[in-house]
Amino acid sequence: MKVVLIGAGNVATQLGIALYLKGFSIVQLYSRTKDSASTLANRLQIPFTTDIKEIIPDADLYIFSVKDDAIQSLLESMSFGAGLYVHTAGSVPMSIFKNYVSRYGVLYPLQTFSKNRNISFDHIPVLYEANTEKDTENLRLLASSLSDTILQVDSEARKNAHLAAVFACNFANHMYTLASEVLGEKKIPREFLLPLIKETAEKIQNLHPRDAQTGPAIRHDLQTMQKHMAMLSDENKRQIYEIVSKSILGEVKKIKN
Amino acid sequence: MKVVLIGAGNVATQLGIALYLKGFSIVQLYSRTKDSASTLANRLQIPFTTDIKEIIPDADLYIFSVKDDAIQSLLESMSFGAGLYVHTAGSVPMSIFKNYVSRYGVLYPLQTFSKNRNISFDHIPVLYEANTEKDTENLRLLASSLSDTILQVDSEARKNAHLAAVFACNFANHMYTLASEVLGEKKIPREFLLPLIKETAEKIQNLHPRDAQTGPAIRHDLQTMQKHMAMLSDENKRQIYEIVSKSILGEVKKIKN
Repeated sequence: MKVVLIGAGNVATQLGIALYLKGFSIVQLYSRTKDSASTLANRLQIPFTTDIKEIIPDADLYIFSVKDDAIQSLLESMSFGAGLYVHTAGSVPMSIFKNYVSRYGVLYPLQTFSKNRNISFDHIPVLYEANTEKDTENLRLLASSLSDTILQVDSEARKNAHLAAVFACNFANHMYTLASEVLGEKKIPREFLLPLIKETAEKIQNLHPRDAQTGPAIRHDLQTMQKHMAMLSDENKRQIYEIVSKSILGEVKKIKN
Repeated sequence: MKVVLIGAGNVATQLGIALYLKGFSIVQLYSRTKDSASTLANRLQIPFTTDIKEIIPDADLYIFSVKDDAIQSLLESMSFGAGLYVHTAGSVPMSIFKNYVSRYGVLYPLQTFSKNRNISFDHIPVLYEANTEKDTENLRLLASSLSDTILQVDSEARKNAHLAAVFACNFANHMYTLASEVLGEKKIPREFLLPLIKETAEKIQNLHPRDAQTGPAIRHDLQTMQKHMAMLSDENKRQIYEIVSKSILGEVKKIKN
């Protein structure tokens, strides 16, 4: 199977490495900028192009790992072969391909990626779909050769997965940032939070996070919550403290009902 | 050194086990309720009492690991010896002891604890303080026999550490809960989030969380943010999405300035 990889960002880099390690034959890399194209092409030891017109037309699989709004403009300026065209985006419907090619789908890895932090795909959930049964089966095989955790979901369900990832990853990470700032006010090193952050993430590997919830809000410890609010001179943090605490209190009611 | 442990909750349980494993001699356990007292006393193989008047007066160290507002009422009803009295609470000032005893302090482990999830104290940051230099040194020795990460901080700084922990642990965990709910709407198993959550926590072990931030908000991807807001029928989740995204956008400005 000949694969063309379109994009050289965080997802493209880690997916490219994973495909390479699993023995897939990536025959070409496209990226708009020469720097990122050559960097990833060197890592994968494959040829690259920065000219959309030079993408070879006879590959079996084209993987678009680019920013959401770049997919459309790439589709408008490239020419197509008979291969299968997929993207890796969480919130872009599969139907974005339908006016351009006859075989298309999505392969969405539910993980956070960085170019310079290599990560094993073995257990990364891969959500996939295709527009025909045959290509659904093709993507199932591809996904299962990458990971032991795969699921066929439609574009609507995939959007939910992406939104869930925003809460679980992007927003959780921002809580770490705010925590580091609060510590920094008293010159306590941010590294002091690392065991706590690690344990919080590990705790829920076997426990529903609702059952793992601790802290003043879940205890209805209004006195501590008021003290905390008074300490937050930053309006933004105070608002987050208030609304997230209220939301935790809401969970208590859900459990009771 | 003879230690009396007051409390049998999450912190008392894990601190009791850690002290036991490090060879400290816990001579008595007090808890208000017989069930929790006997459970922990059995684990530590020590005598227990549920009568505050029966707490022995000649121990060297009394550790209060109870709910914040229970400390005061315990102090009002017990009698005191010449030992050192400390509590383990994040937001209670050390001065709570000052009208009752002459030797007092705080030993605050910055971690989330559960009764039934044993955890090594080796790297848990322990924040300590005492009212005299001599007892500060005593607590420094005690803290350093528990953990390799210790810091002397006053009650004000400790309050910041506790508040930071609310963001980094309690609020991050609530983000996991909301994410699980969003996934559940499409019957995707919550386990699909676990690799993402783990990686998000691991990423910042070597990177400032501000530099690890990913997602639509940090990319200024307003289109995806609007789509996400529209998907959230739950007013509570929508408010959190909006305000946390705004806060992430605010971080971008901080970096640029």
